Amino acid sequence: VDLDPATCRRLARDSDHGVLATLHRERGADLVPACFVLDDDLVAIPIDQVKPKASTDLARLRNLDQDPLATLLCEHWDPDDWSKLWWVRLSLARSGEDAATVRRCEGLLRAKYRQYAAADFAAILTFRVSAIRGWAASADAMADAANGSGG
Amino acid sequence: VDLDPATCRRLARDSDHGVLATLHRERGADLVPACFVLDDDLVAIPIDQVKPKASTDLARLRNLDQDPLATLLCEHWDPDDWSKLWWVRLSLARSGEDAATVRRCEGLLRAKYRQYAAADFAAILTFRVSAIRGWAASADAMADAANGSGG
Repeated sequence: VDLDPATCRRLARDSDHGVLATLHRERGADLVPACFVLDDDLVAIPIDQVKPKASTDLARLRNLDQDPLATLLCEHWDPDDWSKLWWVRLSLARSGEDAATVRRCEGLLRAKYRQYAAADFAAILTFRVSAIRGWAASADAMADAANGSGG
Repeated sequence: VDLDPATCRRLARDSDHGVLATLHRERGADLVPACFVLDDDLVAIPIDQVKPKASTDLARLRNLDQDPLATLLCEHWDPDDWSKLWWVRLSLARSGEDAATVRRCEGLLRAKYRQYAAADFAAILTFRVSAIRGWAASADAMADAANGSGG
């Protein structure tokens, strides 16, 4: 069942994380779980200093310098009941935003994730949504998602 | 914390699903949740007829015809305790396998997923693993994963 854009947007906005793909010239897509906020057609993804990293010189940043395209997948998995499954895919392109917009995104991230309440960000990556698509296994999946069990 | 290859392999093998990326020439990575089995350096992903699809002529198949590279991410998410997080990323290339190998993969898929016990598959996609990488937030995350709470 294909989902309409408004439902896709709502499910993505309410998802607690997604999987981000950036493009590496030789090895193809690099995937990594990512915290994010979706605000209208803007997606912001932090490079945080909360989760331990060997470095903040990350492959995802080098990839985006080479190719601004990215993809974010939000999904709901249920090992026992596949009628509950859904996913939403956002096609993204990295964007430069003004300082006020980046600050607004920071605020949204701190409001969404309590772990970020007092955290410093190494960077905030911003993207514009170029396309959005979603699928659900059934109308059941949507009813559950509306009740907040998704993500 | 980077994970050693044996741990990566174990975590991936025990994951109940992953996110598959294939490459679209214009729009970049297409992501979709995927059931799979990992057996040595072979990954098998079914095109099933259990979850509803408008068609089995899927973008992922068209993408793989153009570019055999794919990536599979398995992850463990915990909204409350980020010390439990881990992910494993498998770099894949589509492979042609003989009929006996494909039948063995079918058997592994049916054994792993009860939903497939009596199901027909439209196709079984097979891949060879070219690289594997993994990350965990802490030693805690690994202990939990060893106890089977991951996936």
